[in-house]
Amino acid sequence: MFSDGVFAIAITLLVLDLPVPASGSLLEALLNDWPSFVAYLAAFLTIAGIWVHHHTVYARVRRVEPVIVLYNLLLLLGVSLLPWPASLISVSIRDEDQTGGVVACAAFALVALIVMVAWSAMTRAFARRAHLLRRPGDVAWMRRSATEATLSGVPVLIALGLAFVNPVISLGLYVAIPVYFLYSTSRSHPREAKEHAPKSLTIPPPR
Amino acid sequence: MFSDGVFAIAITLLVLDLPVPASGSLLEALLNDWPSFVAYLAAFLTIAGIWVHHHTVYARVRRVEPVIVLYNLLLLLGVSLLPWPASLISVSIRDEDQTGGVVACAAFALVALIVMVAWSAMTRAFARRAHLLRRPGDVAWMRRSATEATLSGVPVLIALGLAFVNPVISLGLYVAIPVYFLYSTSRSHPREAKEHAPKSLTIPPPR
Amino acid sequence: MFSDGVFAIAITLLVLDLPVPASGSLLEALLNDWPSFVAYLAAFLTIAGIWVHHHTVYARVRRVEPVIVLYNLLLLLGVSLLPWPASLISVSIRDEDQTGGVVACAAFALVALIVMVAWSAMTRAFARRAHLLRRPGDVAWMRRSATEATLSGVPVLIALGLAFVNPVISLGLYVAIPVYFLYSTSRSHPREAKEHAPKSLTIPPPR
Amino acid sequence: MFSDGVFAIAITLLVLDLPVPASGSLLEALLNDWPSFVAYLAAFLTIAGIWVHHHTVYARVRRVEPVIVLYNLLLLLGVSLLPWPASLISVSIRDEDQTGGVVACAAFALVALIVMVAWSAMTRAFARRAHLLRRPGDVAWMRRSATEATLSGVPVLIALGLAFVNPVISLGLYVAIPVYFLYSTSRSHPREAKEHAPKSLTIPPPR
Repeated sequence: MFSDGVFAIAITLLVLDLPVPASGSLLEALLNDWPSFVAYLAAFLTIAGIWVHHHTVYARVRRVEPVIVLYNLLLLLGVSLLPWPASLISVSIRDEDQTGGVVACAAFALVALIVMVAWSAMTRAFARRAHLLRRPGDVAWMRRSATEATLSGVPVLIALGLAFVNPVISLGLYVAIPVYFLYSTSRSHPREAKEHAPKSLTIPPPR
Repeated sequence: MFSDGVFAIAITLLVLDLPVPASGSLLEALLNDWPSFVAYLAAFLTIAGIWVHHHTVYARVRRVEPVIVLYNLLLLLGVSLLPWPASLISVSIRDEDQTGGVVACAAFALVALIVMVAWSAMTRAFARRAHLLRRPGDVAWMRRSATEATLSGVPVLIALGLAFVNPVISLGLYVAIPVYFLYSTSRSHPREAKEHAPKSLTIPPPR
Repeated sequence: MFSDGVFAIAITLLVLDLPVPASGSLLEALLNDWPSFVAYLAAFLTIAGIWVHHHTVYARVRRVEPVIVLYNLLLLLGVSLLPWPASLISVSIRDEDQTGGVVACAAFALVALIVMVAWSAMTRAFARRAHLLRRPGDVAWMRRSATEATLSGVPVLIALGLAFVNPVISLGLYVAIPVYFLYSTSRSHPREAKEHAPKSLTIPPPR
Repeated sequence: MFSDGVFAIAITLLVLDLPVPASGSLLEALLNDWPSFVAYLAAFLTIAGIWVHHHTVYARVRRVEPVIVLYNLLLLLGVSLLPWPASLISVSIRDEDQTGGVVACAAFALVALIVMVAWSAMTRAFARRAHLLRRPGDVAWMRRSATEATLSGVPVLIALGLAFVNPVISLGLYVAIPVYFLYSTSRSHPREAKEHAPKSLTIPPPR
C-alpha cells in the first residue's frame, strides 16, 4: 500500500541525519552530538506511532472515497516532512542563542499539527460514511479517533510553548508523546483484537 | 506493486532538499529559502496527483502487456526525476539574473511533459486493448484519460512560457496545476466509486 | 515483495546523483555535466530491464527454497549497488586522463556481472527444481533464461574493453544493452501472455 | 508489508556511503577506501540475514497483537540504524589511533544487539501466544528462535572485544556472522519447506 511505503521510507531516511564525524576523537564528537540521536528517536517514534494508528484505522475500512484519499495525502505530507524538523533540531538545539532551537521545535510542532489536522479530518470523514466501514461500531470508533487526534494537539502545543523556556525540554516531550501513544495502543488494542482480529490483524506470509 | 514503490520513494526523497541552514539566525535563513518549500510543495502535489490518477487507471485494468509495462516505466522515469527540477528551482529561482530560474522551470516542465507523453501513450494503448480492461465502458474512459493527459500539457507549456516573464509565477503555476487535478479527481470520482468501487477501490488491511 | 522494494528504491535513488549546480550559469553547468544524465539513463534502464525480467521469472514460480533466496539476495546486492558506478561515471568520464573513466566503467561492468552471475545461478536452480515452477514448460524456459543471462555477459565485457579505447563509447553501450533487452522482452512476451497471463500478469487494484 | 519496506530501504540506502572520490587517481582512492566496501558488505549481509529470518518467523504467524508490533518496531529501529555504524566504520577504521575504529565497531555491535534483544523478545512473545501461530509445533520453533537470537549475541560481543585488539578483525567478524546465519538458514530450511512450504513460502506474482 502506498501509505506504508511512505511511512517505511520516511522512518528509514532519518538515519541519514545521524552524525558521521570525520573521525579524530570520534567518541567525543558523537557524545557532543547527542541531540541528533534524541531528535532521531523523536521522529522515529512519532512516525512509528502514526503508522500503528493508521494501521488500526484502515483495519476498520472496507473501501475509500477520493476525498479521503486527499486527507490521507495531507497526512503523508506531514509524515514525509518529519525528517526535516528532526535535522533542524540536531543542528540548532545546542546553540547558546536559543532562538535556533525554538524555531526548530516550532517546525517539529508545525509538522506534527499538519498530521493531526489531516488525521481528524480523515477519521471524521470516515465517521460520516458508515458505508465505507466494516462494522456499525466503527462509526463511533472513528469519531473517538478524531477527538483523540484533536486532543493530541494539546501536548504538542505545550511542547511548543516550553521551547521558549528551553528547547531541550521541548525535545524531550517530542520523545515522550509518541511513547505514550504507542503504550496506550498496546493497552487499548487487545479488546479490538478479540472483536475482529482475524479480519483486520491477520499477517500474510511476508512479501 | 513496483509503481507505488517508486511513487512513495520519490515523494519522500523530496524532503532531502529542504534547507537545514547551519543555525545562526535560523528563522531568517528559512524564510529566505521559501522557494525550497514552494518547490517541495509543487513536486509533492505533482507526484501525488499522478499517483491518484495512476490508481484510478489501474482500477480499470485486469492485466497488462509488455508494451504497457514499457510506457509505465517511462512514466516512472518522469516521476523519479521530479526531485531534481525541484532542487534546481530552490537553488536558482531567487537569482538576480533570471536565466537560472528559467532553466530550472524548463527542467520541471520537461519532466512533467515526459510524464504526460508516457501517460497518454499508456492510456491510448489500454484503449486499443479492451481485453486488458475490466469493463467495456473502460475503453472510452481510457480514451478520455489520454486526451486529458495531452491537454494537461497546455498549462505546463504556459507555465514554461511565463518563466521567461518571471520564474516565480511559473513556480506558482506548478503548484496550482496538480491542485486543480487533485480537486477535479475528488469531484469526478464518486460516480465511478458507485459503479465498481467494491472491485477497484477496496483497501485491504494495511500491510 | 522485498525484491520489488529494492528495485524501486535503487531506481529512485539515482536521481540524487543528478547535478544541482550552484546556479550562476545553470544551463552551461548542466550541459557540461551531460555524462551524469547518460549515466543516470544507463543505470535506470539497467535496473528497469532487470526488474521486467525478474517479473517474468517469478510469474513462472509457485514457491521458493532458501538457496534461491540467497541467489536472489546476490541479485539484489548487484541492483542496489548500481547507483554507485553511475555516480563514479558522472564524476570521472570527462577527465583528460581517461584512467578515471576506465575505472568507473569497469565498476559498472563488475556490478552488471554480479547481477548476471546471480541471475543464471538462480534460473539454473529453478530449472533443476520443477516442483517450484507452475508448469512443466517452465523448466525449459528457466534454462533458456540462464543461458541468455550468461550470454548477456558478452556485451558487458565488450563495453568494458571499449572503455580502454574511450569510456564514452563504453557508457553508450551501457545505455544500449538494457534498451535491447527491454525491446526484446516486449517482442517475446505476448506469446507468453496468451499462455498463462491471467495467472502471472494480473494486476490487482494498486495499493 | 511495512517491515519489508524498511528492510528494502535500509539495505538500499547503504550504497550512499560508498566512496565517489573526486576522480584524479580514482583507482587508488577506491582501493584506499576498501573499508567502505567491507562495511557495506557487513551491513548488507546483516540486514539480509535479519530479513530472511524475519521471513521464516512470519511464515509461522497467523496474526499479531499490539505488543508484538512494538517489539517489531524495536527490531526495525535497529535495522534502519545499521547504515549509520557502517559509515562510522568506513571513515574511522584506518586511523593511526584506533580509538575511532573501536567506537565505530562498538556502534555496530550496539545496533546489532538492539536487533537481537528485539528479536528474542518478539519470538518469546509468540511462543507464549500459541493462538497467534499457524501450527502447534510453531511454539517450540519460536522458543528455539528466541534462544538462537540470544546466543547470536555472543559472536557480536566477541567482535566487540576484538575491536580493542584491532578494529579490522572486528569488521571481518561482522561480515562472517551474517554469512554463517545465511548459510545455516539455507541448511536448516528445506525440512521446514517440506512441512508447510505451500502455505508459508509461496511467492505470488510480483507486484
